[in-house]
Amino acid sequence: MNQHVIDVASGKIKADLAVINGKIVNVCSKEVYDGGIAAAGGIIAAVGDIEYTIGPETKIIDAKGKYLTPGFIDGHIHPESTNLSMTAFAQGLLTHGTTVIMTDLHEAGVVNGLEAIEALLDEAAATDLKMYFVVPSHVPFAPNLETSGGVFDSSIISKALDRPDAVGISEIVAPYLLNGYPDLMEAMDVALKKGKSLQGHLPDISGKDLNTCLAAGVTTDHEALSTEEAVERVRSGCHLMMREGSAARNLKDLVKVITEYKMDSTLCSIITDDLHTIDLAEKGHLDESIRTALSLGVDFITAVQLVTINAARAFHLDHEIGSLAPGRRADINITDGPESFAVHSVISAGREVVRDGTFLNPYPEIRHKPCLLNSVTMPKKITAEDLGLPAECETGNVKVQAMRTLDWIPITIGEEAVLPVRGGIVQCNPEADILHIAQVERYGKHGNIGKAFMAGFNLKGGALASSVAHDNHNIIAMGTNLDDVAFAMNRVAELQGGQVVVKNGQVLAEAAYPVLGLLSDLSLEELTDLKKKLIDETRKLGSTIPAPFMFLSFIGLAAIPEYAITDQGFVHVPTQSVINPILEVVA
Amino acid sequence: MNQHVIDVASGKIKADLAVINGKIVNVCSKEVYDGGIAAAGGIIAAVGDIEYTIGPETKIIDAKGKYLTPGFIDGHIHPESTNLSMTAFAQGLLTHGTTVIMTDLHEAGVVNGLEAIEALLDEAAATDLKMYFVVPSHVPFAPNLETSGGVFDSSIISKALDRPDAVGISEIVAPYLLNGYPDLMEAMDVALKKGKSLQGHLPDISGKDLNTCLAAGVTTDHEALSTEEAVERVRSGCHLMMREGSAARNLKDLVKVITEYKMDSTLCSIITDDLHTIDLAEKGHLDESIRTALSLGVDFITAVQLVTINAARAFHLDHEIGSLAPGRRADINITDGPESFAVHSVISAGREVVRDGTFLNPYPEIRHKPCLLNSVTMPKKITAEDLGLPAECETGNVKVQAMRTLDWIPITIGEEAVLPVRGGIVQCNPEADILHIAQVERYGKHGNIGKAFMAGFNLKGGALASSVAHDNHNIIAMGTNLDDVAFAMNRVAELQGGQVVVKNGQVLAEAAYPVLGLLSDLSLEELTDLKKKLIDETRKLGSTIPAPFMFLSFIGLAAIPEYAITDQGFVHVPTQSVINPILEVVA
Repeated sequence: MNQHVIDVASGKIKADLAVINGKIVNVCSKEVYDGGIAAAGGIIAAVGDIEYTIGPETKIIDAKGKYLTPGFIDGHIHPESTNLSMTAFAQGLLTHGTTVIMTDLHEAGVVNGLEAIEALLDEAAATDLKMYFVVPSHVPFAPNLETSGGVFDSSIISKALDRPDAVGISEIVAPYLLNGYPDLMEAMDVALKKGKSLQGHLPDISGKDLNTCLAAGVTTDHEALSTEEAVERVRSGCHLMMREGSAARNLKDLVKVITEYKMDSTLCSIITDDLHTIDLAEKGHLDESIRTALSLGVDFITAVQLVTINAARAFHLDHEIGSLAPGRRADINITDGPESFAVHSVISAGREVVRDGTFLNPYPEIRHKPCLLNSVTMPKKITAEDLGLPAECETGNVKVQAMRTLDWIPITIGEEAVLPVRGGIVQCNPEADILHIAQVERYGKHGNIGKAFMAGFNLKGGALASSVAHDNHNIIAMGTNLDDVAFAMNRVAELQGGQVVVKNGQVLAEAAYPVLGLLSDLSLEELTDLKKKLIDETRKLGSTIPAPFMFLSFIGLAAIPEYAITDQGFVHVPTQSVINPILEVVA
Repeated sequence: MNQHVIDVASGKIKADLAVINGKIVNVCSKEVYDGGIAAAGGIIAAVGDIEYTIGPETKIIDAKGKYLTPGFIDGHIHPESTNLSMTAFAQGLLTHGTTVIMTDLHEAGVVNGLEAIEALLDEAAATDLKMYFVVPSHVPFAPNLETSGGVFDSSIISKALDRPDAVGISEIVAPYLLNGYPDLMEAMDVALKKGKSLQGHLPDISGKDLNTCLAAGVTTDHEALSTEEAVERVRSGCHLMMREGSAARNLKDLVKVITEYKMDSTLCSIITDDLHTIDLAEKGHLDESIRTALSLGVDFITAVQLVTINAARAFHLDHEIGSLAPGRRADINITDGPESFAVHSVISAGREVVRDGTFLNPYPEIRHKPCLLNSVTMPKKITAEDLGLPAECETGNVKVQAMRTLDWIPITIGEEAVLPVRGGIVQCNPEADILHIAQVERYGKHGNIGKAFMAGFNLKGGALASSVAHDNHNIIAMGTNLDDVAFAMNRVAELQGGQVVVKNGQVLAEAAYPVLGLLSDLSLEELTDLKKKLIDETRKLGSTIPAPFMFLSFIGLAAIPEYAITDQGFVHVPTQSVINPILEVVA
């Protein structure tokens, strides 16, 4: 209990902060009316007529007739997808009116376990962005098919759930649940007993599979793609997190449960899942989602509910966050109305952090804990020889099983190709868009290298490499020749993580991610520039993929059909097995 | 986690129960459509197309095109107000479609502390009515002004909150909170830390007082009387429990937040608070509330939401109860639609308990735990002499401060009267409607007797007595002569609790409440008959009060203005002090 806010609400003492002359967007009553908001001790003390709370020491913010909304809540976002440090990430989101997120920091866990996640949560706690922790349920994704730095089991999950900021388990993968993986079931059981929620990851799940997940206690899903899936989820009492992020934009179809089916919207919210640096810099975050929702025909207050109280309710946190009401965190946005929605000023926990679009007090440079640094341990440099796939013949040709990415989503399909052999090593064929791809284990455990062939990227020279590689974050690289692939990998290792574009032994563009090999220490603007250069240089090398590094990072994910590359080799996803990419020697 | 329901949802094994050919009232999506519901292990496995769950062993209930709603939830009810045993109470509510209640069993706590409450919860657990426990926050109501059997402090509350069925603290009395009573603040703080909710009791509270209660963490209130109060609560993010019970019917005014203000109804539910035996027998429970809501212009699905999912959400229990969705308790009502709403059949936790209005398996007679019995300890019989108020004169007249109840609500106002003195004792004056009233401590602690004068009941002969006397449940009695008052008190003591109407040393009507002096062991029908006789006989004695025993039981409550009688004496409520009813000797 916060005696300070109680004393202000009762009129005993005066408020710390008062926002006056606003239009209250009341997401509880679904009304808009004139009024102010008083805050104390980071909590809202009064809303509406707040005259009695204002004293000579009260900081006054005049909203000048603008709208006051609750701070926005993203119920499912992976901060690592921005590659920003926690401070830059917080600053970026706050600038767009997001004051609360629910996150699993799963990627940090993959690199260095719960210790790394807790270190990042500590860094975030020093910012004005409130993070609720949703404990990752599977680190790594496929223990038998990839090597990660951190490993979670139910005992670690149980320990993590005891954190006061822990609100549930994240990304409960439907097939694991449907197959009754004992350690997952144990973790879910523990979570339910501790009163924590089970957050689903239920792509392409419907009918009895959906029933099974919900019967087991899962209460949300963020993987619905179609209107039909959305309708089924709401009808089934499953909170529908409508994804509108950088990696997938599904709101247009999903929002029809509200605009066409006229369903109760209480069980719906908007989340981003993955948000990329450039999108954050150029479009925004949930403010952009509100604009999108409005353009799709959602009324203004409902749109605001979708990123505030509804998300709070999905986590049983509506008594703490998500509305402009006494007792809630004093998260307040000063915004335009529905005509041209934009966030002007932002108050987080009673502190003015953004005024007229300007972030007031940028966070000081942070000293990272040692567990976040030096995450790349590779005892020796990679050579072209390390990366070659030996054939059973010295020269001639072999038929290989390659994988080809679709050009709009990083889903791969199989493609057979005939490739030449030189000196016993299978050569790629850039003219035919068949490139080398490899992943090297980077945690100093064994240095395994998986090797295969990749189509769809259309590089005509050079190579790309990245230490961001779902869901193991080993170093993944792809290129037109093994020398450049090796050079790119070594450069990423030298940077202690990052992303690079190289050609003929020269770095064309690079971004360093010294934090876990995942996060930069640059500002949003600086990193945006580097990211654009990475894309530009990749384009100049011939690639036609719109987000080549995002695509590359997903080629390592043994969860997405049909093929993947990990440090353990070339993975056939449907059978969850490592296969030999060389099929046979041909004439 | 319930493996049985998971296996049924997934199709591995067949359902225990299937309701087929229904119209699903979906309170999540706000739709009605044809479908069935499958249940296993007490939990819903599938809704809609449930064909795959039905096997040869599955019990089939054919809804024959009737509507299927979730079981009803009363978020605030005191079972003791029915004076029924837990089994008869459960049977009564279940028959009307209520499958879940939230309750503090406060009255049981007043008589014999947490032990008695836990014994009643145990009795309830053997029925099909699910009770969530909301821990009483003040037992007794006014420790300095009354003597109770049980006493709660924050350490007992903290212990009680650790029960797995405990979901919050009940009846947080606004003035106690506003005055910062340390033990209450401590209990609230403990509850918040344990993730439990704070349920308010906020009559006549608005503006900064309401802000203060909410800033302290209170999230619900059931005491709003006017539309204006209702509007303020919803706007302030306070869940509005709209009371429509036997002691107060406020829905007509409160529901205007939905029907006239068109507010979001998610923060609204209907509760009964106090429900009387005769109302339960003759009108019903929340089924009657739905009929009332419909008659007031609420649409059908919203009306159902008000007694199902909204109540579940108020307690953060919507993942367990309140909707027809996989993973929720299989509480299903088969009902008529909006035209003439009635509950026909009831399934609770997957068990058919009511079929076509008939309760299928009445509960066996219960053996109560010793802590529930023999709660009246009075070492000696009360005599008329014990009850007389001595004057300072032997004969003549005195002016007294009497209290008069309003005739529609048991609120008292002061009334001065001149009464004769005989043999040094002040005599009442039934012709002028000034009666004796007294309360005797019944827990064997000291046997104190409080004495005063009562107007408004209009008894012309005899006396009434009751061991139900909020909020201490001592024996309260009122009558036209001290002999009958003493006789009535002694008869209640002989019964080990109950309510009696007597005249000239004869019992005219009585009901025994052997359980804590609060609850009968009779069936709903039997007790209804006795209750009617109690009222009839009281009417024959001249009383014009519609519910004389309910009114009498509230005259002992030191919380309701302006006067009360307790074992400590005649209480002036605004000053919370005991005063002398005799003002002066007059000519």
